Amino acid sequence: MEHDVVTVLGLGAMGTALARALLVAGHPVTVWNRTPARADALVGEGARPAPDPASAVAASPLTIVCLLDHAAVRTVLDGVDLAGTTLVNLTSGTPEHARATAAWLAERGAEVLAGTIMVPTPLVGPEEGLVLYSGSAAVHERHRTTLEALGRTELLGDDPGRAALFDLGMLDVFFAGLASFLHAAAVVGRDGVPAGEFVRYAEEVVAILPATFRGLAKDVDAGTHPGDEDNLVMDAAALAHIVATSRARGVDPALPELVHGLARRAIDRGHGGDGFSRVVDELRSPRRPGAAAGPAGAAAR
Amino acid sequence: MEHDVVTVLGLGAMGTALARALLVAGHPVTVWNRTPARADALVGEGARPAPDPASAVAASPLTIVCLLDHAAVRTVLDGVDLAGTTLVNLTSGTPEHARATAAWLAERGAEVLAGTIMVPTPLVGPEEGLVLYSGSAAVHERHRTTLEALGRTELLGDDPGRAALFDLGMLDVFFAGLASFLHAAAVVGRDGVPAGEFVRYAEEVVAILPATFRGLAKDVDAGTHPGDEDNLVMDAAALAHIVATSRARGVDPALPELVHGLARRAIDRGHGGDGFSRVVDELRSPRRPGAAAGPAGAAAR
Repeated sequence: MEHDVVTVLGLGAMGTALARALLVAGHPVTVWNRTPARADALVGEGARPAPDPASAVAASPLTIVCLLDHAAVRTVLDGVDLAGTTLVNLTSGTPEHARATAAWLAERGAEVLAGTIMVPTPLVGPEEGLVLYSGSAAVHERHRTTLEALGRTELLGDDPGRAALFDLGMLDVFFAGLASFLHAAAVVGRDGVPAGEFVRYAEEVVAILPATFRGLAKDVDAGTHPGDEDNLVMDAAALAHIVATSRARGVDPALPELVHGLARRAIDRGHGGDGFSRVVDELRSPRRPGAAAGPAGAAAR
Repeated sequence: MEHDVVTVLGLGAMGTALARALLVAGHPVTVWNRTPARADALVGEGARPAPDPASAVAASPLTIVCLLDHAAVRTVLDGVDLAGTTLVNLTSGTPEHARATAAWLAERGAEVLAGTIMVPTPLVGPEEGLVLYSGSAAVHERHRTTLEALGRTELLGDDPGRAALFDLGMLDVFFAGLASFLHAAAVVGRDGVPAGEFVRYAEEVVAILPATFRGLAKDVDAGTHPGDEDNLVMDAAALAHIVATSRARGVDPALPELVHGLARRAIDRGHGGDGFSRVVDELRSPRRPGAAAGPAGAAAR
């Protein structure tokens, strides 16, 4: 099999993992990093160091970009000739960042695919890696074999912001899960229960989340929120107990208070008999006057 | 097999499901409810209605209590002779409620087991039910066969508050999961992605939560928070992107803002290189002056 020549810009922990996975797969790899010493280990493994971004981009038809943020992408590529080159931008950011950067690169003649890496650095690679892409389907198709050295690929359409949108939606659920587990662990810990004893019960909750999420998704898309077995009044009562139990133990109650507040807002609007999915309407609505920073207005970049 | 005579006090949706499961299992069941008409269906299925709480309790050696709240338990049983009777209290509340009610009942001569029903009403029963108990192990042992008509039983020790503590810890994780999924659905929905399309990605997150929770639990119990593959600075950057993406779409950013704030607090205390589990220390600490309602002081009952 012939192996594409690839350039990697940016050798932080993730950029290094990407370059290494490409080397392991047999690709000739050119690397560049602002601090050249970060390339030393990779050069020892066969990578070719480029002295500047322009020569790095010129060295390969395909350049993978993984810099600190989108501002760094513009700084690094400002003035570099991108006509006819292909860029796969795996730099983290918001959908707005990804769209703006893709447009900026396209104006300079590059063909652009945006992506978000869904696994930590040790899992980058063909077996356990996963990268979501969006943007140019042609780039995805043309370089698919090369990209598969980094992980399984999934193309989410031609909006370059879509991969970041899905990534951040997933991280939203992920970090709320982590924070809520740590909150519950802090609460039960006050009564002498080790987190390692409680975790088995938290795992039982996780086991019912997929079916629960599917039920919520159905309600959200239908715009109906039946409260057959469970309703917001019952949910709010349970959430009030969680808040009180947290308070009584000197554990920060802000997380369950916030969820309780969403349920209360929906009840106050007359939806007490509805299911929990009704809360989506509260999340979509601007908060009431007097609440903390309003949701609208502030830009994402 | 001989079937214990059982009384059920309280015929809300859950009390009705409990009484019905006992009838289905072949137990003679006496029922009482403040509004007697709530008993009609069960009487048609073979239950015996009692005219008042005292005669209901006197009718069986074992009484299952499932009332609106713990205040109702005291109102209903005030003045009733409880000497020598056995009460299984499945009324919802905080650990403090469960302990106080158990003590109040014990002072009146009852032997008490506290419990929390972990499934919605349609799943109450020997196949799919699950009830966590704590309090008198003797009651649990003596009435185990009867209790198994309601669901699998699990005894969590002799503190009558322990079952509620675990239940609320589980619900803490459950409701945060639901709220975060609805938040992510609201965000992706603004870009035209149906929740039913996004849910598959949320399920991929759920799939990694059990191992992630076990890792967090290990860190929490060890009091060490290594940030090997991932650290709070990286987490805070991702959370800031979630907040910005939510704001840019007019979706209430309070949930990711709260989680971001926890990570920021830990970073500000010098833990930016630690893993996310370090956040448990922030949850355990009183919030800073100037923040909303302090965690300590307010009682849970």
